[in-house]
Amino acid sequence: MVQKITVDFEPIGRRVEATPGQTILAVAQGAGFTLGAGGVYSPCGGKGLCGRCRVRVKGEGLSPLTEAERRVFTPQQIAEGFRLACQAALYAPVKVEIPPESMVGIQKLQVEGIEVEVMPEPPVARYTLTTEQTTIENPRPVWQQVAQRLASDYNLSQLQVDMELARQEPPLAQAKGGTVTVKGREIVNCFFHRPVPPPVGLAVDLGTTKVAGFLVHLETGATLASEGIMNPQIAYGEDVMSRLAYALEDEGQYQRIHQVIIDGLNRLAKDLATRAGLETKDIEEAVIVGNTAMHHLLLRLPIAQLARAPYVAAVTTPVEIKARDLGLSFSPGAYVYLMPVIAGFVGGDHVAMILGSRLDRTDKIVLGLDIGTNTEIVLKYNGRMLSCSCASGPAFEGAHILHGMRAVQGAIQAVRLKDGGTEVELETIADAAPLGICGSGILDAVAELYRTGVIDVHGRLNRQHPRVRVPEGGPAEFLLVPASESGTGEDIVITQKDIGEILLAKAAIATGTELLLKAAGLGVEDIQEVVVAGAFGTHLKVASAVAIGMFPPLPLELFRQVGNAAGTGARAALVSLAERRRAEEIAKQVGYLELMVQPSFQDTFVSSLSLPERSSL
Amino acid sequence: MVQKITVDFEPIGRRVEATPGQTILAVAQGAGFTLGAGGVYSPCGGKGLCGRCRVRVKGEGLSPLTEAERRVFTPQQIAEGFRLACQAALYAPVKVEIPPESMVGIQKLQVEGIEVEVMPEPPVARYTLTTEQTTIENPRPVWQQVAQRLASDYNLSQLQVDMELARQEPPLAQAKGGTVTVKGREIVNCFFHRPVPPPVGLAVDLGTTKVAGFLVHLETGATLASEGIMNPQIAYGEDVMSRLAYALEDEGQYQRIHQVIIDGLNRLAKDLATRAGLETKDIEEAVIVGNTAMHHLLLRLPIAQLARAPYVAAVTTPVEIKARDLGLSFSPGAYVYLMPVIAGFVGGDHVAMILGSRLDRTDKIVLGLDIGTNTEIVLKYNGRMLSCSCASGPAFEGAHILHGMRAVQGAIQAVRLKDGGTEVELETIADAAPLGICGSGILDAVAELYRTGVIDVHGRLNRQHPRVRVPEGGPAEFLLVPASESGTGEDIVITQKDIGEILLAKAAIATGTELLLKAAGLGVEDIQEVVVAGAFGTHLKVASAVAIGMFPPLPLELFRQVGNAAGTGARAALVSLAERRRAEEIAKQVGYLELMVQPSFQDTFVSSLSLPERSSL
Repeated sequence: MVQKITVDFEPIGRRVEATPGQTILAVAQGAGFTLGAGGVYSPCGGKGLCGRCRVRVKGEGLSPLTEAERRVFTPQQIAEGFRLACQAALYAPVKVEIPPESMVGIQKLQVEGIEVEVMPEPPVARYTLTTEQTTIENPRPVWQQVAQRLASDYNLSQLQVDMELARQEPPLAQAKGGTVTVKGREIVNCFFHRPVPPPVGLAVDLGTTKVAGFLVHLETGATLASEGIMNPQIAYGEDVMSRLAYALEDEGQYQRIHQVIIDGLNRLAKDLATRAGLETKDIEEAVIVGNTAMHHLLLRLPIAQLARAPYVAAVTTPVEIKARDLGLSFSPGAYVYLMPVIAGFVGGDHVAMILGSRLDRTDKIVLGLDIGTNTEIVLKYNGRMLSCSCASGPAFEGAHILHGMRAVQGAIQAVRLKDGGTEVELETIADAAPLGICGSGILDAVAELYRTGVIDVHGRLNRQHPRVRVPEGGPAEFLLVPASESGTGEDIVITQKDIGEILLAKAAIATGTELLLKAAGLGVEDIQEVVVAGAFGTHLKVASAVAIGMFPPLPLELFRQVGNAAGTGARAALVSLAERRRAEEIAKQVGYLELMVQPSFQDTFVSSLSLPERSSL
Repeated sequence: MVQKITVDFEPIGRRVEATPGQTILAVAQGAGFTLGAGGVYSPCGGKGLCGRCRVRVKGEGLSPLTEAERRVFTPQQIAEGFRLACQAALYAPVKVEIPPESMVGIQKLQVEGIEVEVMPEPPVARYTLTTEQTTIENPRPVWQQVAQRLASDYNLSQLQVDMELARQEPPLAQAKGGTVTVKGREIVNCFFHRPVPPPVGLAVDLGTTKVAGFLVHLETGATLASEGIMNPQIAYGEDVMSRLAYALEDEGQYQRIHQVIIDGLNRLAKDLATRAGLETKDIEEAVIVGNTAMHHLLLRLPIAQLARAPYVAAVTTPVEIKARDLGLSFSPGAYVYLMPVIAGFVGGDHVAMILGSRLDRTDKIVLGLDIGTNTEIVLKYNGRMLSCSCASGPAFEGAHILHGMRAVQGAIQAVRLKDGGTEVELETIADAAPLGICGSGILDAVAELYRTGVIDVHGRLNRQHPRVRVPEGGPAEFLLVPASESGTGEDIVITQKDIGEILLAKAAIATGTELLLKAAGLGVEDIQEVVVAGAFGTHLKVASAVAIGMFPPLPLELFRQVGNAAGTGARAALVSLAERRRAEEIAKQVGYLELMVQPSFQDTFVSSLSLPERSSL
């Protein structure tokens, strides 16, 4: 019997027995390094062609370097012990280090506590090729050689070269070869005269208020950098309706509001790339998810019908467009993929939320909420999905609240009242002196005011309460923080109007939930899980939301706060074409419920404005 | 037995027997109206979905209109007797008129005497669809309805809408429906609010001197209009080298020479469309073939390596690009397809010439010549093709010839000398008074001067000849037309320098032929056919070209003058994706012989400068 040898695979820490003469790839595959367990990526099937199964070996005892390996590696890499797993055979015990880019497996996208498994199917593929110098005797320019080699070695025929890439790239091939990036049948990038950066893409959750960007490694799914910026369109309107109205006024204004978001995305991309030690021109693919208005303003689509009845999108199908056609300065041939849209007010961000939270795959009856200036709600039941959109307004972003502010340092994010509301306990972001109240703080405050009886079932402040006062000419207000304790040197109060804004917002959301359940023929008690997505949704106290009737009266353990699920969905779609197909399926499956045309809309909304009976708490 | 009924099909004039109750489509198919015989086009397979098998029926005796037919036809069309062949069943004798757009079959492209059979596989397809009005209760915009209908009725999923089309088209669907044009998975045009023009495309043979355009019906292959214009780039240089040099001087000049041809193509398209009663925005597809320099200047590709050694193309693969990305004002989503290129001086026009003349399919040993400022020659032998490019110069276009002119009214196009060259017989275009000499005329003249001994084997004029004179300070010249007989009022002469220009041109072509044969290991006697393409090639007298050694000394019956075969190839590729695949095969199969690096190039060229021994005539 042949003596077995041991092979240690790092960083996964697996020790495997091998038969002398086996290739590293065969050993890895034989040991069941299947999907999810850190197998070695080998798209060419172990022929030494793709150069993708690179590993680094510590120790002697390997077969000599093959020609394929000499073609793929630089002398420096060879010196560092790099080998192709499909080429190197084992004859003695060794340690094999699998670099991240060679690792295949179900990727884990980790975001704020939830983990999503993504089957990798990168939108672009890279190939390292040899070329011969172009001369009058060998008059084959670089693209001809590349096309011939991709056809012969990878069976990729009928390839096109992106025109802008062809315009930029010197056409004469050199003897040393290089790497190309291929998307489908198109060569979209190349590295013949410069170092090869990691394959990266940009995922964007394009919100009305906030734009979240993620720079992601397209093969491993690793997030290399992430950043949130304010949507610069905010200068032209706080909510989608005011922006649409601005853009509709004249073509020049539309162009301006379109251009500022393009500029903003270019800046965001540059910041992210710089943080990862890269440049924007290294970004080879992008996925953008946004609500329908953001989507349309980005693409310069017709919007009149979106701002007015019948409130519909112009385009709902997924859009794939060259980044440069939008004015985005990514790699020469980079594409941007925009998630499909469900309806005028249920956009690609909702599809991404469902995708990112895996709501489409559950067998339970689930209510999913993505709370924002506009709140989208989906009800998953009996294999179906039904969504609606609620105009919840920007109160939870701190807008329209007298001392409202965004969730930044100094914002009051949690409130607890004691002794019938005479004593106030606060929690501020970064424990700074309080400057104002953010969404979760005002939500808490209203819930506590109600619990302690400072407000009644209609939200009216009890004017007899010691902390309630009525300034001359103004509405009643509750003194939350006296000037002496605030960071602004002024009182921080909650006014009767502030409470009204919160009741309007919660009524909008509660109405959506109730009408969805009604359309589905279900009751609140049928809901088996409530998924709460979005930045505000992650930070709010669920008990408070239930207490004021914004969320249905269900046990707290049924609620799951999943963070920026839309961003997660965008990243999943960025690294995997399978996820895009799934997103397209979701967009097709989700039914849209237009609340405005429901006969009971008005009644439901009005009755939702009241606070729930305290007995139900 | 059931009584048979007779059906007359027009315009093909076929009388067929039918069983009552059969559909018109079934009758046509049963009668063997297969490809090439005028069958009825029915892409949906007779389901009444595509609306393409429309026929016009004279006489009663048909089944009632179906719902599908009411959807497809306007009341006016119904009144005119239009029916869908797949829906209408026959119960009495009728006359069925098949309109051209419903006729399938091998198309015949008729050009200057040759006929080419093209298997139709149109690049775009049209679908007529119903839509429901978009309202707040039915909030599905037009593209969503179109995508859903194409998916359900035609199994076309994952469709995208061209962004520019989506920007232009009103997004609200109306109850009356309309027609869309689909290319692959993309909706590229639509007709919801306007009449549906015939599906037309533009084929362009983009020559250095002349640009030939053809407006073609994409389904029938019929040429609706054709026109030739001068290439406006001629203002920046007569031949490709001078244009490349101009463009290389600075980026602004490159932009200018690029823009003039774009403008020229837009004008040409407009003229052609106007003649056919259409607009340029009705052009839904285009194919452009041109030599490599014209191709690169059109696409703004790098050209330094084309103008200098190693004289190679930047891009040789076929290019498919949105017309608008080139600045061409066709339909919103129209594509332009550019034929693949073989080498720096063997371009897409050569591929189109081989395609158009069907040279790739012959089993004979064939020499193919496309004569122009640059002459490309292909040798087809033993299943292989080998091509070269010869710098034959613009002499045959009338340039560099003292009294040279283009082949327009008044040009001497044929010359016959009598009585030892003392008497001259001429033929002019349109029988007008002679103004100058065009290519075929100067070719004839040199051949006749040699035959009658006025010039010797080196082309030297016999200064003793009565019609030969030596003006003071100038070269010797032969008086072709005295001032008294010319249309210019001045003598028309052929100078010693003119003869030298013709000998240079013929030597270039003869050298190419000889070196191709040498590379293939063949002799002149092995050639079984000579295909002569191009406008000049069609009009020249083959006997004269053989007499001066420009063409190999072969029996005249082996020569086939095929006209603008490149234009024919362009039209074939315009109407048929199968032809494009074939063109791409040709481009891959053709080997390129770089004459400059052949060791015997110089010797062959010098010996080709002499005229052949008269004994070989």
